[in-house]
Amino acid sequence: MSENNPVHDVITIGAGPTALSAAIYTTREDLDTVLLEKGVIGGLASITDWVDNYPGFPDGVAGLELGERLQKQAERFGAKIELAEVTGIHPKKGLVEVETTDGIKRAKTVLIATGSDYKRLGITGEDEYYARGVHFCATCDGAFYRDKKLVVVGGGNSAAQEAVFLTRYATHIDMLVRGPKMRASEVLQNEVKKHAGKITVHYNTSTDEIVGQEGKVVSVKSTHNNKSVNFPTDGVFVFIGLKPNTGFLAGSGIELDEIGLIKTDTKLQTNLPGVFCAGDVRSGATMQIASAAGEGATAALLMREYIDHLARTPQVHT
Amino acid sequence: MSENNPVHDVITIGAGPTALSAAIYTTREDLDTVLLEKGVIGGLASITDWVDNYPGFPDGVAGLELGERLQKQAERFGAKIELAEVTGIHPKKGLVEVETTDGIKRAKTVLIATGSDYKRLGITGEDEYYARGVHFCATCDGAFYRDKKLVVVGGGNSAAQEAVFLTRYATHIDMLVRGPKMRASEVLQNEVKKHAGKITVHYNTSTDEIVGQEGKVVSVKSTHNNKSVNFPTDGVFVFIGLKPNTGFLAGSGIELDEIGLIKTDTKLQTNLPGVFCAGDVRSGATMQIASAAGEGATAALLMREYIDHLARTPQVHT
Repeated sequence: MSENNPVHDVITIGAGPTALSAAIYTTREDLDTVLLEKGVIGGLASITDWVDNYPGFPDGVAGLELGERLQKQAERFGAKIELAEVTGIHPKKGLVEVETTDGIKRAKTVLIATGSDYKRLGITGEDEYYARGVHFCATCDGAFYRDKKLVVVGGGNSAAQEAVFLTRYATHIDMLVRGPKMRASEVLQNEVKKHAGKITVHYNTSTDEIVGQEGKVVSVKSTHNNKSVNFPTDGVFVFIGLKPNTGFLAGSGIELDEIGLIKTDTKLQTNLPGVFCAGDVRSGATMQIASAAGEGATAALLMREYIDHLARTPQVHT
Repeated sequence: MSENNPVHDVITIGAGPTALSAAIYTTREDLDTVLLEKGVIGGLASITDWVDNYPGFPDGVAGLELGERLQKQAERFGAKIELAEVTGIHPKKGLVEVETTDGIKRAKTVLIATGSDYKRLGITGEDEYYARGVHFCATCDGAFYRDKKLVVVGGGNSAAQEAVFLTRYATHIDMLVRGPKMRASEVLQNEVKKHAGKITVHYNTSTDEIVGQEGKVVSVKSTHNNKSVNFPTDGVFVFIGLKPNTGFLAGSGIELDEIGLIKTDTKLQTNLPGVFCAGDVRSGATMQIASAAGEGATAALLMREYIDHLARTPQVHT
């Protein structure tokens, strides 16, 4: 690592709503801020078809547009977005070193805002038919299934909520729930019941294979009470949870909770000095853009405090 | 109290960005939601001239417009806003009773989202010249002082930040700091120093009286080292902190922190069952609209969880 590497005030890992909101605040306070993104600027928001509940947009807003608006706002105040993948972070000499595919970068504070991805089943056909019959986001891809049959996999809140949502398009939905009951809230389970004319729930049913013909999904193979059951369908939506994007933290010593989300204190600090975390990858996250953006703003103020404190504290190692 | 009073799912006390964001979420999930407001719908946001850092508005948005957009979005999903002042809350028989000027109302959950107001000096002339020479919000009223002289009272973060902001209008600013130094962060103090050509800081200086002539502010009387000092000025901006709106909670037994903000656990619950708190009146709040709206959204999900739990739990008292 070159010692004349510039020291940034703030590096965010990720450039979704959390990081962009944080950057709006940090750059507006003249903190030198770099956002590192390996995928899509705007994060999951940008690949969401329509966002109805982000506060401030009475008629909703296209996810892509919201992502672009956040980016434009952060860049207006001076945020720099770089395309690079982060491979590790190490607190060192009162700073934080960030290993990236573009070399080592240094900052006074790092905000981990990498979010979470949708969990996959890991079964045959899932990758092969990804986005061509196998989907993870109802608002993104539901409209392709107008007057078609669907299979929904999962029994949690998002499975119940999205199954109900998909009834606006699909003629019928087979909902495959692995266990003997749904984990979804009663409110949502009642919603599913209200749509019993369109949604048939199958309990104790595993999802084994997605079967296609001539490049199209035609059925889902499943097992119910040790018997194989086949569900003919035009498409499959999988809602079995989220996978926190924390792979790059292996060996960093950062503390995770039981489902792999990053633990923070009430000041959004991880156990690594100078390393903050907010949004969908943080333990306790709600997986809502509003909450993520709000946490980004809060994190920005707390990072500013931390940097002010650094400035007042003599650094023994530097 | 009439027992055939309807039981709402959610009552919010206040209808600012926090409550409106919460209501967008709760009503979208079909929870019966009533917002009680005694003042301005949209809260402090609506009386703020221009909001530059609410994420999603690249060029900023007028505070009044943002408030109206939030209101429209919440009402679109079915939120009911009622003008009433809350005078007390009491958990009772597994519900929460809310005493208002419009009678007693009942709900499964209550969200306290009353925010905070600007603190006043309590000196002669302050009320008399309110909004006609005495101001508490630089972004709201600063533009009236183009090419004029100003006095800024306070030495904290907001005083420092707003004094710097006001240099874009004023020809000169006398900043009156009661103590021997500022409480503002070093970053902000350095900002003030950068503007030394326009801002003169006076330490150990109390602010005693706002003096007017013919309906206009003409000077501020102050004391420095036991000597009276007069600062001729066209206007006064007071930035000495915020006053949490918690008067109606006297006798409720709700726990407050050392500066009078409401304490919550990590689930945004107060010590009173069924009573949640979010936004600028909550201990740890950042006084930012983005954070407030984000907390509102988070609170909505947590109240939904609480209501689901109530539904599954037999109520002994009802």
